[in-house]
Amino acid sequence: MAKQDRAIRTRQTILSAAAKVFEERGYQAATISEILTVAGVTKGALYFHFPSKEHLAEGVLAEQNQKLPIPDRAFKVQQLVDTVMLHAHRLQTDPMVRAGVRLSLDQQAQDLDRSGPFVRWSEVGTTLLEKAKAQGELLPHVTPSETADVLVGSFAGIQAMSQAGCEYQDLPGRVSSLLQHVLPSVVMPSVLASVDITEDRGARVEAELLDHAARQHLAPVS
Amino acid sequence: MAKQDRAIRTRQTILSAAAKVFEERGYQAATISEILTVAGVTKGALYFHFPSKEHLAEGVLAEQNQKLPIPDRAFKVQQLVDTVMLHAHRLQTDPMVRAGVRLSLDQQAQDLDRSGPFVRWSEVGTTLLEKAKAQGELLPHVTPSETADVLVGSFAGIQAMSQAGCEYQDLPGRVSSLLQHVLPSVVMPSVLASVDITEDRGARVEAELLDHAARQHLAPVS
Repeated sequence: MAKQDRAIRTRQTILSAAAKVFEERGYQAATISEILTVAGVTKGALYFHFPSKEHLAEGVLAEQNQKLPIPDRAFKVQQLVDTVMLHAHRLQTDPMVRAGVRLSLDQQAQDLDRSGPFVRWSEVGTTLLEKAKAQGELLPHVTPSETADVLVGSFAGIQAMSQAGCEYQDLPGRVSSLLQHVLPSVVMPSVLASVDITEDRGARVEAELLDHAARQHLAPVS
Repeated sequence: MAKQDRAIRTRQTILSAAAKVFEERGYQAATISEILTVAGVTKGALYFHFPSKEHLAEGVLAEQNQKLPIPDRAFKVQQLVDTVMLHAHRLQTDPMVRAGVRLSLDQQAQDLDRSGPFVRWSEVGTTLLEKAKAQGELLPHVTPSETADVLVGSFAGIQAMSQAGCEYQDLPGRVSSLLQHVLPSVVMPSVLASVDITEDRGARVEAELLDHAARQHLAPVS
């Protein structure tokens, strides 16, 4: 393995260990030595990649951004729906995504800038809604950034409610219900009629991405 | 002061102290001895009212339910909006409400039943929406419990986003925006035209309640 590949793999091992420990203990109670034990790397390797606990948490938070390869859709509203439903699906299936969302809502992580993920998700949503608006998919009164903020904030709470109630079992259904309640206020009826917001949409988009990666002889994004 | 009044007051003093400590430290890091110091009561008094940290947290969580004296409105949709907007206003102004909401979202409070407040708020919302439906205020396809869950989950996330971003400064505006996005999908247009969801609605409802209490020569709810 090339030296650079090894460094990337070590960094990923450390981040996975940090995600596990942050998810179990919360930011405040998590310790670097526990993350070291779970990762099974040397202290030197860890500090080379992440000089502090804060850097580790920021690394976990940033992982949410690396995983947004939704293919272009003709309707930008569908692309927005796919982004939201895929994120719900990954909360059920991907510990790294789960740890990032939990850190964003960890009120004891006071030295961490927790507004970052909210801001970044709002930017993703605003960009897609601006494109949708330019294509005439939205009702004329809609302000893309305001609608993006409503969706991002609502999603954060609905995932917390689903986690507290049943460890995410009902999350895709709840997110589909959120979209059913919000989209009619912002999307043109003629567009809405063609948009798929059924609750298994996230799983189907994930399957599509994995299939696409396999066809390209690429390793699926882990 | 009668013996019973004193007991009620002591209980309230302990709950306020617990709210303060839970809000600052989170559930896991909070200790009974710190709550004792802040409350300035004897150990015996505290354990008489609350035998454990879990009981203290449940007491703080339950305080959210004691504070819902919204007057009857002709439109039940308005009563629902008033309930939501008043809660947003109290998050800005009342440390007890703030501590309750933070406990509900405290992922480290694993021995606490955090789904309780979600379930109770959903019941409050479902009851009001069922009345609204019976009065013909809702669109025919609406399922009251589903809409209530969307509103409760969304509110939880929007308050977290507002807290992370600016310590609740923009909360009433964000909640008003949520209602503007959701209500058109569930409420009859003719009713919607008469419903006030402007962002200072919560402060005005609070003033109405205090005024009403003063007229009745009652002490305002603290």
